[in-house]
Amino acid sequence: MSYKPLNEQTLAEYLRTRPAMKEKLSPQEGLAVTEVGDGNLNLVFIVKDRTDPNRAVVVKQALPYLRVAGESWPLTRERMRFESQALHLYNDLCPGLAPKVYDDDADMSLIIMEYLGSHQVMRKPLVERKRFPRFVDHITTFLANILFHTSDFCLSGVEKKQMQSRFINAHLNKLQEDFVYTNPYMSSSENKWNPLIDKEVQAVRSDSAIKIEIAEMKEAYMTHAEALIHADLHTGSIMLNENDTRVIDPEFSYFGPMAYDVGALLQNIVLNYLSHFGHTEDRAQREEYQEYLLSMIRDIWNEFARKFDALWRANPTGDLMPQRYWDYPGGKEAFSAYRGRTLLRLLREAAGHGGTKFLRRMMGIVNVWDIESVKDPVKRAVAEKAAIRIGCRWLLERRTVNSINDLTRVVEEETKNILP
Amino acid sequence: MSYKPLNEQTLAEYLRTRPAMKEKLSPQEGLAVTEVGDGNLNLVFIVKDRTDPNRAVVVKQALPYLRVAGESWPLTRERMRFESQALHLYNDLCPGLAPKVYDDDADMSLIIMEYLGSHQVMRKPLVERKRFPRFVDHITTFLANILFHTSDFCLSGVEKKQMQSRFINAHLNKLQEDFVYTNPYMSSSENKWNPLIDKEVQAVRSDSAIKIEIAEMKEAYMTHAEALIHADLHTGSIMLNENDTRVIDPEFSYFGPMAYDVGALLQNIVLNYLSHFGHTEDRAQREEYQEYLLSMIRDIWNEFARKFDALWRANPTGDLMPQRYWDYPGGKEAFSAYRGRTLLRLLREAAGHGGTKFLRRMMGIVNVWDIESVKDPVKRAVAEKAAIRIGCRWLLERRTVNSINDLTRVVEEETKNILP
Repeated sequence: MSYKPLNEQTLAEYLRTRPAMKEKLSPQEGLAVTEVGDGNLNLVFIVKDRTDPNRAVVVKQALPYLRVAGESWPLTRERMRFESQALHLYNDLCPGLAPKVYDDDADMSLIIMEYLGSHQVMRKPLVERKRFPRFVDHITTFLANILFHTSDFCLSGVEKKQMQSRFINAHLNKLQEDFVYTNPYMSSSENKWNPLIDKEVQAVRSDSAIKIEIAEMKEAYMTHAEALIHADLHTGSIMLNENDTRVIDPEFSYFGPMAYDVGALLQNIVLNYLSHFGHTEDRAQREEYQEYLLSMIRDIWNEFARKFDALWRANPTGDLMPQRYWDYPGGKEAFSAYRGRTLLRLLREAAGHGGTKFLRRMMGIVNVWDIESVKDPVKRAVAEKAAIRIGCRWLLERRTVNSINDLTRVVEEETKNILP
Repeated sequence: MSYKPLNEQTLAEYLRTRPAMKEKLSPQEGLAVTEVGDGNLNLVFIVKDRTDPNRAVVVKQALPYLRVAGESWPLTRERMRFESQALHLYNDLCPGLAPKVYDDDADMSLIIMEYLGSHQVMRKPLVERKRFPRFVDHITTFLANILFHTSDFCLSGVEKKQMQSRFINAHLNKLQEDFVYTNPYMSSSENKWNPLIDKEVQAVRSDSAIKIEIAEMKEAYMTHAEALIHADLHTGSIMLNENDTRVIDPEFSYFGPMAYDVGALLQNIVLNYLSHFGHTEDRAQREEYQEYLLSMIRDIWNEFARKFDALWRANPTGDLMPQRYWDYPGGKEAFSAYRGRTLLRLLREAAGHGGTKFLRRMMGIVNVWDIESVKDPVKRAVAEKAAIRIGCRWLLERRTVNSINDLTRVVEEETKNILP
């Protein structure tokens, strides 16, 4: 079937042509279809079997243009291949931490996957101050396993490059390269920002120290092919409930710097932290939840580092380095020191990528719902100015960071600058 | 024609089947064929037309195993595709600095190219203390142009990744990964070294500080896809005479760290410098030529940096970064500072990769002719011990290097340690 964007009417008929759907849905009648895509790139349909509400699937189809920018911004549909490949790999390496994939259709640029009816996209419940006691364990298992098992610490050089050759994702890379690392910091028509923070935005755009550091982070994004990264791992790419966590939407995935995923996640939790200056009036309530979010950030880094290191120790199978390389008196300690140095490098780079992403969210094309949903622009500006300050400091001070506490301390210090 | 290794007898017949050879050679009779391959991987034939000595070609054919290690070390023949692609690109970007390619035969894993009858492989004339007044200008034009024009400083992100996808050279990468960054520093049966330097070799193999730094350089080699590098740019990959310089043998080429090529070249010139402690008895003669080599090293770096920077200023066309990014008061100076910082990073990384390569040449599978041709093992050990000391220092001290003089100073200091 040649490519055609589906709609709520044509989807049911399309699904009847897919053999894999025979067992998932009643093929003859009674499908309830709703388009729910609120992302920037795709159509997303929830399809439910009216005769049995437990039978449901999600259909995600790529559009040939950038949805958030309109049809004038063409975009290759090939991205659905990367999403499908990544989801299959997630299910192999971390069963239960990504939606199952039931069917792929390359011609139609779509995938059919598990419906997560009891899960919420993470942003919203965080604004509602919900707690997720198993989230840190789940997301650090995901990050440590995917990043380690696709890296040169685990794979042979040949295996890794063969895998990498299936993830040459040049067009989606280009979106992040432009929208994370370039356009927000220069005059570009799609940028948007709160007029009340115009002074701060213009200051970033003409601060040479910041701009040189951003260029350096972009260089890493464009050239450091360390592992298969998700490359869009914000709290809108995580669906969860109290017991279960799933990582979705890996269409941007490619072999890039591992620290990018970690930095994106930590930075999105800080943005949610800041949004509570607008969302949560009661100070005690706000501070209690903000402390919960800061401890979540500390736990994510520390658990990620612990699990990554444990995987590495238990599976020293990669070409970087073979075990025999460390086989001499003192070699065990040297291997340990090399792992420690690598993890500290990742933390510092996470601060750099995360710091940059604070800035892009405040002054680029894609803002973030946690903050945008603060309707009062004065209150919103309080959070936004703090986000810019924290972003600049994570980026500029990253070379002296030695533990995750150095990053949460910046958040606490900038919180003191907000409150009288 | 299905793959079959050629020999001096079968080659002439093969050439008669290639239409592209009609104009280069007399097809009917009188071809003089000599196999001259002294490399590690391939057959190399010089074919001359007996009726007209000006008509000649070189035929290079890949063997399905690593020649230096014997038939037990299989190796993909695909490498000839990378060599051919790279040579075509060199001829496009730097006409006159690589041999012309007349014909490719993918099935036979061979290429037919220009015969360089008036050129010498660089190692030997350097041992004979010959001077090449145009070499620095030629090789820096080559390095600056190839590295700049295939980097994100010049290309769009999409163009660069499309080019990169044609150079996924996993199997040849693996050879350098193992033989430059791993096996020499651990117990591995193919390693060879002068018994007189056994103490120094064992000391490197159990020095944790050195081994961690080597692991870090290997990480860069395996993951930093900055530009199309030659990846084997020693003085055996350069053919030249007083007027002309050609870069040959780019079968290892892939998208890797730019500094690797620069470091390999500088380090090979220092190895030649050291070899004169064995080759050149007369002290005044030796010192004069060694000073020439040190000035060559300084000139190579300074001219490379100057030309790379000039290309970047004149062609700021790459996605890293677009000109508009620097378009603000002070932005011109920031762009200049970013270029300067990038070039300093390249110099430091060149010290790291070059430093590692000193060590591998002294204790790995592939030694270097300049030094090996010092037949007296006692004299050879003098040069070898100095090479190990210089390699360790380039590697360990690279983060404080600020100019090329810091690297040549290490050579001078270790020279003082040799001479009474």
